Amino acid sequence: MATIEEALAEIKRGTDEILVEEELVKKLKEDRPLRIKLGMDPTAPDIHLGHTVILNKLRTFQNLGHEVYLLIGDFTAQVGDPTGKNATRPPLSPEKIKENAKTYADQAFKILDPEKTHIVYNSEWLDKLGATGMIKLASHQTVARMMERDDFKKRYAAGQSIAIHEFIYPLLQAYDSVHLKADVELGGSDQKFNLLMGRELQKDMNMAPQCTLTMPLLVGLDGVKKMSKSAGNYIGIHDSPDDMFGKIMSISDDLMWNYFELLSARPLAEIDAFKEQVKGGANPRDLKILLAKEIITRYHSAEDADAAEASFINRFSKNALPDDIPEVTVNAVSEAGILITNLLKEAGLTATTSDARRMIQQKAVKCNSEPVTDEKMTVPRGSNEIWQVGKRRFARVLVK
Amino acid sequence: MATIEEALAEIKRGTDEILVEEELVKKLKEDRPLRIKLGMDPTAPDIHLGHTVILNKLRTFQNLGHEVYLLIGDFTAQVGDPTGKNATRPPLSPEKIKENAKTYADQAFKILDPEKTHIVYNSEWLDKLGATGMIKLASHQTVARMMERDDFKKRYAAGQSIAIHEFIYPLLQAYDSVHLKADVELGGSDQKFNLLMGRELQKDMNMAPQCTLTMPLLVGLDGVKKMSKSAGNYIGIHDSPDDMFGKIMSISDDLMWNYFELLSARPLAEIDAFKEQVKGGANPRDLKILLAKEIITRYHSAEDADAAEASFINRFSKNALPDDIPEVTVNAVSEAGILITNLLKEAGLTATTSDARRMIQQKAVKCNSEPVTDEKMTVPRGSNEIWQVGKRRFARVLVK
Repeated sequence: MATIEEALAEIKRGTDEILVEEELVKKLKEDRPLRIKLGMDPTAPDIHLGHTVILNKLRTFQNLGHEVYLLIGDFTAQVGDPTGKNATRPPLSPEKIKENAKTYADQAFKILDPEKTHIVYNSEWLDKLGATGMIKLASHQTVARMMERDDFKKRYAAGQSIAIHEFIYPLLQAYDSVHLKADVELGGSDQKFNLLMGRELQKDMNMAPQCTLTMPLLVGLDGVKKMSKSAGNYIGIHDSPDDMFGKIMSISDDLMWNYFELLSARPLAEIDAFKEQVKGGANPRDLKILLAKEIITRYHSAEDADAAEASFINRFSKNALPDDIPEVTVNAVSEAGILITNLLKEAGLTATTSDARRMIQQKAVKCNSEPVTDEKMTVPRGSNEIWQVGKRRFARVLVK
Repeated sequence: MATIEEALAEIKRGTDEILVEEELVKKLKEDRPLRIKLGMDPTAPDIHLGHTVILNKLRTFQNLGHEVYLLIGDFTAQVGDPTGKNATRPPLSPEKIKENAKTYADQAFKILDPEKTHIVYNSEWLDKLGATGMIKLASHQTVARMMERDDFKKRYAAGQSIAIHEFIYPLLQAYDSVHLKADVELGGSDQKFNLLMGRELQKDMNMAPQCTLTMPLLVGLDGVKKMSKSAGNYIGIHDSPDDMFGKIMSISDDLMWNYFELLSARPLAEIDAFKEQVKGGANPRDLKILLAKEIITRYHSAEDADAAEASFINRFSKNALPDDIPEVTVNAVSEAGILITNLLKEAGLTATTSDARRMIQQKAVKCNSEPVTDEKMTVPRGSNEIWQVGKRRFARVLVK
């Protein structure tokens, strides 16, 4: 069993903010399974790495003995976009919602412990509120408080319209916390206001208020926007090992450190050591490979990670070839074929055979992207491979 | 049958504002019974003259062949004050609401034609909206539009809290108009914003929008605040004829003209003529009596009006006597008693008997507030009445 201090350290790792830490400590000291809440919108069931930042944190709570309530926000999904202005948000049928929720849960269980996870649907209690209950709920918060939410404040100031039901949605989420008697609610840092609504409503209804724990938003592959399906800058946990590998290799070096902190299970000390290595001249590419393999191992397997690496290296090398490689034919000088130094000279890739030899010695010659080390090798008749000298000289050479 | 022009003139009399008059004319030309809506809060079932301003207008519509929908706002009455801050607004039971509504209707039918009046309860359709429908309804209006309502704007600017459900109430009233397919909604001038909500929601739901007709608020007896039960400055239509008479006689001359315009059925031309009479020196008190009798005749009967007048005059006269009337005893001079001229002189009310005679001739002598005209009358032994000479000389005179 972890001590309170150890538990708190694990909980705090990578968090954006905990409100209020002293209260959380008090709850941890109560020595009972805390009720940890995470709300999910069932409209987009595919989990990407952005979601896993928080799921990993839920898993931490489970490892510490607490119970997770995975709340499927099917009530608002049934409503869709009531203004009808957003064609991409039609109401979902109960069947579709169940299906999405199951898909979501199947994915979440790659991270969460099913034994300590309760999947709940908020339509179960929100539908029962009825028209009257909805009005009573709306009475629990003020217009001025709602206006403190950053996006509302900005839109109001800019003269952009806010529909009144948008003021009710945060209260629905808050009521979910009341109904679930949540001890802690998790969310992205953009959810802080909504999570605090739950805290305030619980207080207003004379309950012990939940603590809120926000995690930073994972930036997407573009390094700019938050990772999301709609922005197309995401890595889905169902992505193939090859796709995962390629996507992670594509991120900037800066973003790599962010991903290490939020996605890797490696201790922070190890990550700090990596940073020192890079400062000392190590290639960040090699660390990206480590990260990619760790993530593929988690969502697929270690074998898949190795295969993805090999496949990537292979594709990467191929992809490094230019599209317009000239095709050259050289004549064999014997039955066996032609010496490599002669081949390179005849194909115009080097000026002389001694030039060719020197390039081979300098490891500047490749055949099909594989380095050539034997300066005395004979290339057989019928060979039709891509030869490369240095970074820019290429030729496909047929030995006739 | 009234022409459109005549109908419009009757409808417009005394109104504060009609939005939009051209649309109302168009509706009147459709030659069908229009659906005229008035919403009522069933918490205070006693109708006072302030309410009758609008009920009179509804009666005008009925006289023109239209149908009145008297809407009992029982849905919100069931909710009460959800913030719990207002102890005077507890939720009402369905039984109490029905009882209040019946009381209200009984009173309204003193003005309205029951044949053309539909009494409807909005809980019937608002309850059915459910939690989901309530959110969809809230999506039909924006925060910015709601903030245009005068009291919201002021409270927000002053940092006074507005609970979110307060933004929903105007939408409930608006939805009532949608459900009833109202052609015209009536209300006090303080209701203009809420009535326009109905118009906007109908448009938003692709219905022909209702016209709104606002009536000025009747000022209460104090001449300052609007007439209301809570301000205690009202005349209830169940008030006794005597109370009605006394209350109307108590209003200022200025307020009298306002009441004539809004409560009297007399043509405006007649009221203008009254004004001319007052300018020419007539006593406004006499016109107040006319107004009081018209109103008592409407809510009680003509006989009651006459009786109330007599009773008032009687009480008024008594009330006009000073509290400290000296008591005087005079001796009868014969078996019959004493001549009035002698009585007045002996009691010290006149200096001489000829002075007494002259005062009687000038109609300056009263007995129990009734003028005395017979200067030769004999006052019998045992008489013990109040005598008055001029405005200031009084005595209670016992004839021994």
